[in-house]
Amino acid sequence: MTKVKIYVTLRESVLDPQGSAVKGSLGKIGYNEVEDVRIGKYLEVTIGETDRDIDTIVKEMCEKLLTNTVIEDYRFEVEEAN
Amino acid sequence: MTKVKIYVTLRESVLDPQGSAVKGSLGKIGYNEVEDVRIGKYLEVTIGETDRDIDTIVKEMCEKLLTNTVIEDYRFEVEEAN
Repeated sequence: MTKVKIYVTLRESVLDPQGSAVKGSLGKIGYNEVEDVRIGKYLEVTIGETDRDIDTIVKEMCEKLLTNTVIEDYRFEVEEAN
Repeated sequence: MTKVKIYVTLRESVLDPQGSAVKGSLGKIGYNEVEDVRIGKYLEVTIGETDRDIDTIVKEMCEKLLTNTVIEDYRFEVEEAN
């Protein structure tokens, strides 16, 4: 069994209205030192026994389904568990 | 300037319908080895000059606004930038 942690972030050049809204709210409750907030996704995927290469299938899953590569970047960490 | 990475996950005991849907979709496109998917949030917060302790204010921001501690857990990493 393998646990994979996937981090999906908006590309630098893409506006993040959700992040801006959160930044605004933080400012309103007194956290004016906050300069920027960017919001992404964090996925934990558990993969069972497989003959395929973990890195390859995670990359495929990200490109095909989990992320929108036009506006998002991703990176992942593979952790062996059992 | 300090960059903080915050990971928000659903508590173990809380059902994750979005994760289940993604697991189902991955199964349909041929990734049957995927046993579980849990989806959380990933936030990058940039904090400017402040007299306050970074760990303390990040914790406060998480508890007050960024997470719902009834159903979510969070952890964060503080990264000094320049």
